[in-house]
Amino acid sequence: MSARLAIEPLTPEAFAPFGEVIHAEAARKVFPINQGSTTRFHALAKVELDGGAAAISIARAQPQALPLAIRMLERHPLGSQAFVPLAGTRWLVVVATSPQDTPRVFLADRGQGVQYRRGCWHHPLIALDAGGDFLIVDRVGAGENCEEAVLVGEWRVEG
Amino acid sequence: MSARLAIEPLTPEAFAPFGEVIHAEAARKVFPINQGSTTRFHALAKVELDGGAAAISIARAQPQALPLAIRMLERHPLGSQAFVPLAGTRWLVVVATSPQDTPRVFLADRGQGVQYRRGCWHHPLIALDAGGDFLIVDRVGAGENCEEAVLVGEWRVEG
Repeated sequence: MSARLAIEPLTPEAFAPFGEVIHAEAARKVFPINQGSTTRFHALAKVELDGGAAAISIARAQPQALPLAIRMLERHPLGSQAFVPLAGTRWLVVVATSPQDTPRVFLADRGQGVQYRRGCWHHPLIALDAGGDFLIVDRVGAGENCEEAVLVGEWRVEG
Repeated sequence: MSARLAIEPLTPEAFAPFGEVIHAEAARKVFPINQGSTTRFHALAKVELDGGAAAISIARAQPQALPLAIRMLERHPLGSQAFVPLAGTRWLVVVATSPQDTPRVFLADRGQGVQYRRGCWHHPLIALDAGGDFLIVDRVGAGENCEEAVLVGEWRVEG
């Protein structure tokens, strides 16, 4: 048996319990730099770290086709994790308050990225369209920084 | 009087004295994640911090036209600073060992980003093409983290 999850628009307000939306429109502090030739949308997300260091990586994701079954979630207890598409690829952001709760599904489009707060339960990357590259900012260093949970129910995401 | 600077291709080897190239091709550690649906180009750059925290920001840059005069450089003594184009915009990476030395100019293309090492002298963002958005990863927090130096000579970058 599986239940269908609704796809919600990704807004900073709706996503606030889980982390930050990384997008110019989500900025609360905007100012000019470089004698006005550049606009800085400042500190959209602050990296959270418990020891270790922040690192910048790239994920090259194959596209996933809907409908899709959501059967597991993971979380990183020692640090935040950010994903930002490098060519505007749309993707699905699946998060939950706990593995026992109903997951929520947000559609990230127009180049939207997110940072999952430290410890936020989330699904591995689900790229849509033709897939593509995503910039990752997350923690490297000693310690066990990935927990996985198999979900009791099975959840469906449909187009 | 001004002297012309050559534009060099951006490679990890050539840029090593100044920082890291952020691009899949620059990866030294590549492995599959998410049951093989995604490839991770791991830890292309580690964020350097002297206190404070790393933050993720966006810079929206207007395009600069060549020829261009290079008259100043800046550096951040308390942390590294990374720029990655969010839509493949080409840009010029201008760095120097010191404000007294001849600057070097690298053409970042095919989506290449860089991280300037902590304390690396560099020019503010020079976006080419139609300009565009860049993801920034740098330090936020107390302390004076920007020094500027006016160059004695004037340097020209031509197309």
